[in-house]
Amino acid sequence: MDNEFQKALMKKLDEHEDEIIKIRRYLHAHPETSFHEKNTARYIKEFYRHLACDLQDCGDGYGILVDIHGSHPGKCLALRADFDALAIQEENDLPFKSQNPGVMHACGHDGHTAYMMVLAKCLIELKDMFSGTVRIIHQPAEEVSPGGALSMIQDGALNGVDNVVGIHVMSTMPTGTIQLHPGPTQTGRANFDLTFIGKGGHASMPQLSRDAIVAGSYFVTTVQTVVSRRLNPFDVGSVTIGSFDGAGSYNAIKESVKLKGDVRIMDEKVRGIIKSSIQKVIKGIDDSFDVRSELKYDDNYPVLDNSRSLTTQIEKWLKEANLPRVTAIKDSGFVNASEDFSYFAQVVPSCFFYVGCQPADGGNYPHHSPEFMLNEDSLLICAKAMGTVVTNYFVS
Amino acid sequence: MDNEFQKALMKKLDEHEDEIIKIRRYLHAHPETSFHEKNTARYIKEFYRHLACDLQDCGDGYGILVDIHGSHPGKCLALRADFDALAIQEENDLPFKSQNPGVMHACGHDGHTAYMMVLAKCLIELKDMFSGTVRIIHQPAEEVSPGGALSMIQDGALNGVDNVVGIHVMSTMPTGTIQLHPGPTQTGRANFDLTFIGKGGHASMPQLSRDAIVAGSYFVTTVQTVVSRRLNPFDVGSVTIGSFDGAGSYNAIKESVKLKGDVRIMDEKVRGIIKSSIQKVIKGIDDSFDVRSELKYDDNYPVLDNSRSLTTQIEKWLKEANLPRVTAIKDSGFVNASEDFSYFAQVVPSCFFYVGCQPADGGNYPHHSPEFMLNEDSLLICAKAMGTVVTNYFVS
Amino acid sequence: MDNEFQKALMKKLDEHEDEIIKIRRYLHAHPETSFHEKNTARYIKEFYRHLACDLQDCGDGYGILVDIHGSHPGKCLALRADFDALAIQEENDLPFKSQNPGVMHACGHDGHTAYMMVLAKCLIELKDMFSGTVRIIHQPAEEVSPGGALSMIQDGALNGVDNVVGIHVMSTMPTGTIQLHPGPTQTGRANFDLTFIGKGGHASMPQLSRDAIVAGSYFVTTVQTVVSRRLNPFDVGSVTIGSFDGAGSYNAIKESVKLKGDVRIMDEKVRGIIKSSIQKVIKGIDDSFDVRSELKYDDNYPVLDNSRSLTTQIEKWLKEANLPRVTAIKDSGFVNASEDFSYFAQVVPSCFFYVGCQPADGGNYPHHSPEFMLNEDSLLICAKAMGTVVTNYFVS
Amino acid sequence: MDNEFQKALMKKLDEHEDEIIKIRRYLHAHPETSFHEKNTARYIKEFYRHLACDLQDCGDGYGILVDIHGSHPGKCLALRADFDALAIQEENDLPFKSQNPGVMHACGHDGHTAYMMVLAKCLIELKDMFSGTVRIIHQPAEEVSPGGALSMIQDGALNGVDNVVGIHVMSTMPTGTIQLHPGPTQTGRANFDLTFIGKGGHASMPQLSRDAIVAGSYFVTTVQTVVSRRLNPFDVGSVTIGSFDGAGSYNAIKESVKLKGDVRIMDEKVRGIIKSSIQKVIKGIDDSFDVRSELKYDDNYPVLDNSRSLTTQIEKWLKEANLPRVTAIKDSGFVNASEDFSYFAQVVPSCFFYVGCQPADGGNYPHHSPEFMLNEDSLLICAKAMGTVVTNYFVS
Repeated sequence: MDNEFQKALMKKLDEHEDEIIKIRRYLHAHPETSFHEKNTARYIKEFYRHLACDLQDCGDGYGILVDIHGSHPGKCLALRADFDALAIQEENDLPFKSQNPGVMHACGHDGHTAYMMVLAKCLIELKDMFSGTVRIIHQPAEEVSPGGALSMIQDGALNGVDNVVGIHVMSTMPTGTIQLHPGPTQTGRANFDLTFIGKGGHASMPQLSRDAIVAGSYFVTTVQTVVSRRLNPFDVGSVTIGSFDGAGSYNAIKESVKLKGDVRIMDEKVRGIIKSSIQKVIKGIDDSFDVRSELKYDDNYPVLDNSRSLTTQIEKWLKEANLPRVTAIKDSGFVNASEDFSYFAQVVPSCFFYVGCQPADGGNYPHHSPEFMLNEDSLLICAKAMGTVVTNYFVS
Repeated sequence: MDNEFQKALMKKLDEHEDEIIKIRRYLHAHPETSFHEKNTARYIKEFYRHLACDLQDCGDGYGILVDIHGSHPGKCLALRADFDALAIQEENDLPFKSQNPGVMHACGHDGHTAYMMVLAKCLIELKDMFSGTVRIIHQPAEEVSPGGALSMIQDGALNGVDNVVGIHVMSTMPTGTIQLHPGPTQTGRANFDLTFIGKGGHASMPQLSRDAIVAGSYFVTTVQTVVSRRLNPFDVGSVTIGSFDGAGSYNAIKESVKLKGDVRIMDEKVRGIIKSSIQKVIKGIDDSFDVRSELKYDDNYPVLDNSRSLTTQIEKWLKEANLPRVTAIKDSGFVNASEDFSYFAQVVPSCFFYVGCQPADGGNYPHHSPEFMLNEDSLLICAKAMGTVVTNYFVS
Repeated sequence: MDNEFQKALMKKLDEHEDEIIKIRRYLHAHPETSFHEKNTARYIKEFYRHLACDLQDCGDGYGILVDIHGSHPGKCLALRADFDALAIQEENDLPFKSQNPGVMHACGHDGHTAYMMVLAKCLIELKDMFSGTVRIIHQPAEEVSPGGALSMIQDGALNGVDNVVGIHVMSTMPTGTIQLHPGPTQTGRANFDLTFIGKGGHASMPQLSRDAIVAGSYFVTTVQTVVSRRLNPFDVGSVTIGSFDGAGSYNAIKESVKLKGDVRIMDEKVRGIIKSSIQKVIKGIDDSFDVRSELKYDDNYPVLDNSRSLTTQIEKWLKEANLPRVTAIKDSGFVNASEDFSYFAQVVPSCFFYVGCQPADGGNYPHHSPEFMLNEDSLLICAKAMGTVVTNYFVS
Repeated sequence: MDNEFQKALMKKLDEHEDEIIKIRRYLHAHPETSFHEKNTARYIKEFYRHLACDLQDCGDGYGILVDIHGSHPGKCLALRADFDALAIQEENDLPFKSQNPGVMHACGHDGHTAYMMVLAKCLIELKDMFSGTVRIIHQPAEEVSPGGALSMIQDGALNGVDNVVGIHVMSTMPTGTIQLHPGPTQTGRANFDLTFIGKGGHASMPQLSRDAIVAGSYFVTTVQTVVSRRLNPFDVGSVTIGSFDGAGSYNAIKESVKLKGDVRIMDEKVRGIIKSSIQKVIKGIDDSFDVRSELKYDDNYPVLDNSRSLTTQIEKWLKEANLPRVTAIKDSGFVNASEDFSYFAQVVPSCFFYVGCQPADGGNYPHHSPEFMLNEDSLLICAKAMGTVVTNYFVS
């Protein structure tokens, strides 16, 4: 039966490639930023309206759950695709270029959603061929923190779900490659806002002021020791001060500066060490320079921890499937980025993997670039790879 | 004769106090920023049009020279008053509040100009009582660098001039006090713009970037040693980084940061030590962090160096004059601020002194505050103090 | 035959446990520091004099090679044991306490050598039972850099050798445990000596000096960024300044300071990044502070890289051997220390593994402590574990 | 009478120059370090034994007071000379080279004491020529803190004394010059011992340690801001870390480091600002790096504040005296060094001035150098200059 289901699904997907591309282009032309995806959500729901599935809104934003019930009860596998865009002005010249000024699908979520919608439609058509439930999670707001995943989970998105699987297209990987990594695969993250408040004054009278730029600068130099001295060299951690907002004039001592920080980890035990070490450095700066500080520390994305058994399993299935266009399936190693898929993976054993979408000319515009492009050939690969997971999942 | 000239001048000034205040209020209501004082200059020139003096434009801006020739040839004494305002929105509620939004006489130059115009008029009326020339220097653009003084000098403002004298009203000194200091009295200044250019990138991949915020912060901590280790503790020097412009996002490593710096000295020999030391620190930062830097270093105001003999002489004259309302004449010590009067003092022996203008209620809004106020009683003191200098100068 | 050889060897080792302990105690009582192990070497060679093996000196120090030829030609397996002691005054009260003041076997090399000598004797007695050659490498001077391994290799210690295996007893692991890790297992290391030379002078006249303590301190704060900003967070690296020698008086500015540094890596690609980054920081400090520096940078131990196939093989053999006293065989993960066994592993596929020697009372004095103790029960485990490697190696 | 007294004294001093030099050479050959000047004190007291004066021990050390009463009661003028030597091995080759290994008169105190003893003898011989009392203060232990002055004052050295005058020979000033400065003339000083205590460990495991070298280095970089940001640029202050004692090995993280600091000021108000600012920085370092600190802060010498009126008076007397060999009398400006004469000056109006003693060949070995030399011609100048102060003091 496996064989039949897989064959039937692959055939259907081949027949629907045009539809995937059509949807993707529509979404690309009509991008909406995180938590503002009202029209996108309406478009998605319209698509499912007359199909044989259960549709429900979920979470604080425009999240949608689509349940596809097989012929008999069984396990529940969730497939997740995100659909928000970024506040970036597209610089590509395309027939389906963004029509919304300053907003762009520059991360490939248009592709994620397009392949998933069509895959869902095909699965609905073939639902007699499997037992159990496929739950499609159309997630909004992946690009911001806290993103759309958390509130969907709180609203029941994973109730009854056994496993979740997700895909991200990657413009840095050649089209035709699929990459997975068992265990921790993407960094966990924290962000913080830090203000040092001293006392302003005239540049020629430092004794009457407490120089916030000086305090902030010593903070930056001291906080380097969090990574260099507080962590086990075998642990992964980074602390970046991405913003030092202390613009002023030549001859006035700055009263306050605002910093923004980014923290990355690959082991949740390291999270607390970094946080408390940063707090200690801040206290030290306050003391040394007689300044006051305000810290807003946001422990957001967990480490994305792929289930070792599920990921190994999926790798095996993908290799056995011998999909056309797929030229390599390999270990991605660690990926520096962070993703709120990690919240799903905290609740149930999950797997998040990567499908190469590098344009055929070898161009490689990074995600979040105004010139980001994806190779549309990759979308059928996504659909088939995820489809292969589904067909094997329900027979294994 | 001295006695007669002084008596006559003081009497005239007493009679014209109302006019001083009237002019000051007009100027206060119609402030113009540095190098944009077109209407102010027109107003001043209109005042002199029918008076017996020589009037000429001078310098790149709206500078005006007014020469008052005495009965016979003799020495030439220049009196300087500045007339520009600041880009500050006035927050005082006055009948003669600034009518130009965002522009305010918040430093007292309206007072300087008002007393000087009336003093000039009185001197013109009494010009038979002295031999020699009084040159009134109405200077624009004192508040910016390079200010109005330099181009007036280049345009001949000090040709034939033996000495220059100037006054600044001071809201930090009680009305009734006059303060002078022989020798260096105000700091010299330099300003600089410094950009560090590294390489931007994603916060989770510092190895691919060269973090400009880190480079800039280490610059700030290292540049502290210029004052703490490079200068003789007996020398005066300060280095302030007044602006650290590195605003960005949490998760991107900043490609470049822009800093602005302010340097103060009391001895021109120290100027070069600080400059070359800062340059060395910058080179060190470039090397340590693989960044590139751009430095624009502007050696602007010299140390304001009061002629010791002229200043001692003026102090003596003022004490002997026993002026009404004047309650104390004392040594100001060093003053932290900088002034482009210092350029005049580089060319001829000069004296710049301070007249208290603290409001009667003891309020003390600092210069450049949107609530700055001057006690108008101080303006007649200015006129009489400067008048005393003139009458004594031409008989001494 | 395998079975027979293993059985015979294990039986022989059981019979010789007393001899292992006797030798170990003799060595413990007569420790000699690195490159001064003259009597130890003489003692070892005396042991082999009348045994059926080939004995030769090797390398710059007191290294010894013992070749045991089996019944027929075949592969050559080298077994390495180190025999130097440390310049530490023993604080244990033992009947066989160190008789050499200030010198102590505080790292367990006495145990390594004792078990290896007895294992060699047993192998000689059983040499008809295998084909090929076992080469015993008695290595001096493991505790210093460059240690004894390098010159032994240059002198031919690995000529004709197919693989090398070594053991370290570990007081931090319970007796009965054996730990191995395929791939990189111990850090690579570099050490450096760094002197900053400024100009001395009186504390009250910093302008005439160039303060070496200030330069050295800014070096320490800046060099933190090598780990925090120059490395991929997924890479392993540490930079420690272990010595800052700048002792002086209150009132003199220090002319020079001497620093010592330690660098650790787990990937040889990282070695050069750290080295060049440190050099850049030094150049930056020289520039910023007008000081001169002298750097002696010693890239010493490579990363100890265990052959994945050999290590996996040995783990399997050890598990199958089901040795008495052995309670657990597991993955050690990374070990922070460094070892010059790594030089052997650079030349031929090798494996270095760990045998727990924690005292029965659970006491856990770290290696290099004056109270270091090993559980002598561990020595027979070493002999049998290494014996198991030998018997399996020659049949596999 | 003035005239007569002065003439008589100068004549006597001329006659005794040989004795001054003889005494100076004896003292030079027999130096003793601070608070160990037993034989020196005995030698001095022996000198006075048969002279008509009152002799008494004073203070915790070997201090001596010699009172010379004039013909009638009157004011009391104290003259101070110090007599301790330094722990320096003399490197000069002189007939009267130090006979005490490792001890040397390398600061000229031998000269101070020699001229003062002879001046005292001459004054005793001429005591009928003045009314009042001359008190000779032979002070031990000027070179250490707290020095000999404080306990002599506590023991009554200044009881009944109206003024104190002291001289220091200066090898940096040409012989023949005398320099004085009214008001603050030498810096006040504080010294501190500071220990940072972290936690030692292995260089490869920073996460288990708290690196004291890192903490100490960030302290040094942060404490630079005390001078650069906490002080008025018009104030004088310096903070030097003269000692950073953190010697260790390559591969161990240092548990603790010991620092020594030196603070200089010219205004006692600045003393507290620096002290509290340093304490704040220390607290900040403790917080940032989880280390503990121990601070021993010794506020020792006050600013040496010369009485303006007495100093101006003495300058006038010296100029009028027209002493032979004296070629210049001028303002010394500020002097960077510190002196415990400053304690006397805190109690009564005092004057401390400088007599050039540069060798005739222009050689200029600094004070405290093992090659320090003084020009013996300067000693008669000292005697006559101080004698001139005495003769004028009692007639003025």
